[in-house]
Amino acid sequence: MRTSIYNRRSFITRSAALALSAALPAAALPVFAAGNQPANDDLFMIGPVKGYSPQIGTLVSMLNYNRQTVIQSVQSLNQEQIDFLLDGHANTIAALVLHLGATEKFYQINTFEGRQEFNEEEKKRWEAPMELGDKGRKEIKGKEIRYYLDLIAEVRSKTLDEFKKKDDQWLMAVDPKWSKPDRPLNTYWKWFHVCEHESNHRGQIAFLKSRLPGAKPASE
Amino acid sequence: MRTSIYNRRSFITRSAALALSAALPAAALPVFAAGNQPANDDLFMIGPVKGYSPQIGTLVSMLNYNRQTVIQSVQSLNQEQIDFLLDGHANTIAALVLHLGATEKFYQINTFEGRQEFNEEEKKRWEAPMELGDKGRKEIKGKEIRYYLDLIAEVRSKTLDEFKKKDDQWLMAVDPKWSKPDRPLNTYWKWFHVCEHESNHRGQIAFLKSRLPGAKPASE
Repeated sequence: MRTSIYNRRSFITRSAALALSAALPAAALPVFAAGNQPANDDLFMIGPVKGYSPQIGTLVSMLNYNRQTVIQSVQSLNQEQIDFLLDGHANTIAALVLHLGATEKFYQINTFEGRQEFNEEEKKRWEAPMELGDKGRKEIKGKEIRYYLDLIAEVRSKTLDEFKKKDDQWLMAVDPKWSKPDRPLNTYWKWFHVCEHESNHRGQIAFLKSRLPGAKPASE
Repeated sequence: MRTSIYNRRSFITRSAALALSAALPAAALPVFAAGNQPANDDLFMIGPVKGYSPQIGTLVSMLNYNRQTVIQSVQSLNQEQIDFLLDGHANTIAALVLHLGATEKFYQINTFEGRQEFNEEEKKRWEAPMELGDKGRKEIKGKEIRYYLDLIAEVRSKTLDEFKKKDDQWLMAVDPKWSKPDRPLNTYWKWFHVCEHESNHRGQIAFLKSRLPGAKPASE
């Protein structure tokens, strides 16, 4: 029971989890499933990262951690599973994964290029996963999970390259186009949203995973 | 269609949303529903906050934003809706909201007091929402949403008071108990997890909301 809760709700290495499992409330304990340790040993160190300004580096450490939790939760699923539709207005796991890339792509063109919309070429690739819904259900299917993970990794790679050229002043800058006189909005909000938005959909992916045909019922 | 997407997937003020809606991909655009603007005008300013050390203040701005999005998504639901069970192993919206408080409470006793488990009194209040599952389904029900929001607000208030007494060195400190030689884990990871964990469950709440009896079908 506890182990299944670890696997569903959290993300630390198994050995750490076992060492702590007697002491900690299960649901509070992040776990990486055995054999799926992240490549990045600093994944659980949130804070400034070498090669980036202090606040941007901290954001990078958060983006890296959240992305790893998404990869962790979907990488072992097969094509049938990631294309599974729970009901007529659900999104597939494949579509939710690609939606993360579409959202990040949009915030790239907005914060790196000052554009407010995708160009025609970007729309061809990203409109369906951005919109989801009927368009997503129709257009996003028939590929292995690796295909989608590679696409969003390519987007992320561009984000990290651009971040290296920016500083904390850029991250804190208020965007007059997105602000109201009584409600300023800054670049950091946009990228924090990209980050926390991955957690939002990871929660939905966990819910869908526990309801895949043949899945062991899990409390999500 | 776009408006419904705004309301479901995002969180900016309505007027800003309308101003931007022609230009931005709907799903990229955060929206607060009309009449539900957050009290905090700095909600979309992520970064250092007066009264806290720079990195702790940045974390506070993230915690504040994420919490407001959760409040926004549940505050207008009635008791029947927050106690609704989608299926036999789903969690109710009420239980998910209280789970956020339980998780934060655990990280309080861990990072402020160095404890690895709840005491008996804390278990009475927090064990069910921490564990969720059968225990949560049995014990968490029959209250209005305000009851749960007040409970988690009380926990959050304690977090913010304690954060005022801490500095960035504390936030960056590695916890030897939770670390492995090749995988250090710091205080900031613990509190970032509390933060992004709210997004994780907000995604599930959005999924459940769109499937409440009588709810307008929505693509979640």
